[in-house]
Amino acid sequence: MDPFLEAAIEEARQGLAEGGIPIGSVLVLDGAIIGRGHNRRVQKGSAILHAEMDCLENAGRLPARDYRRSVLYSTLSPCDMCSGTVLLYGIPRVVIGENVTFRGPEDYVRSRGVELEIVDSADCRRLMEQFIASRPELWNEDIGEEGGVRK
Amino acid sequence: MDPFLEAAIEEARQGLAEGGIPIGSVLVLDGAIIGRGHNRRVQKGSAILHAEMDCLENAGRLPARDYRRSVLYSTLSPCDMCSGTVLLYGIPRVVIGENVTFRGPEDYVRSRGVELEIVDSADCRRLMEQFIASRPELWNEDIGEEGGVRK
Repeated sequence: MDPFLEAAIEEARQGLAEGGIPIGSVLVLDGAIIGRGHNRRVQKGSAILHAEMDCLENAGRLPARDYRRSVLYSTLSPCDMCSGTVLLYGIPRVVIGENVTFRGPEDYVRSRGVELEIVDSADCRRLMEQFIASRPELWNEDIGEEGGVRK
Repeated sequence: MDPFLEAAIEEARQGLAEGGIPIGSVLVLDGAIIGRGHNRRVQKGSAILHAEMDCLENAGRLPARDYRRSVLYSTLSPCDMCSGTVLLYGIPRVVIGENVTFRGPEDYVRSRGVELEIVDSADCRRLMEQFIASRPELWNEDIGEEGGVRK
């Protein structure tokens, strides 16, 4: 398997081991990982640290020219927020582990010129299927759906 | 002036006083501010803490039903990232101080059912015009444009 997708899956598993939502992401530039992250909603009480956001935050402040040559890997199809961040920074290519358990605005992202590769990884699907079955309220909260109520 | 937009402008001014990019945001629910924030790219070395993101992060983890009755105020037209976050959480209305110095994907956001109100505030415009003139490289970095090079 693509070693970068493997690294994103490793991030997802780390998040799960921390009690979090198992979604991971890495940012790759010139064949090297320059940022990695995983969903930290639970761990940091965060409303914005989806895996891709955590990854980009950990990559730090980069010049536009770096983003524009980079590839973002995510174990799951990026949501509206994370897709918007890809568009903001002009990241030209996103490799997506799976888009079966959740699917972001892929057609819109493609219409803005971003190349999306859907790997359809059984490992990625299994992580999410098991998590959604065990913690549906947390998953709903993460994607802004009703049923994700904590209060 | 709308006191909530005033509060967002106050956030923008606080950011400027900290040496940051002068964009502020507040989240309003049932007539009360439940989150406030400002751009913290400089202050936290952050690639993701635009004003709206900082505001939503500071508001904390909320149930979907709260987001869906809230109003987000921003001194500046939300970029792709911040607009995507509005869509993720189903925030139904965004009040925008100005969209002259920068304009996010407003047509797309409207097409997804979000109401946008453009106030066209001279205070908001002046804050950005002065900042962009004085720190163009920082502004370009914040919107993912070339010329925003730090390295």
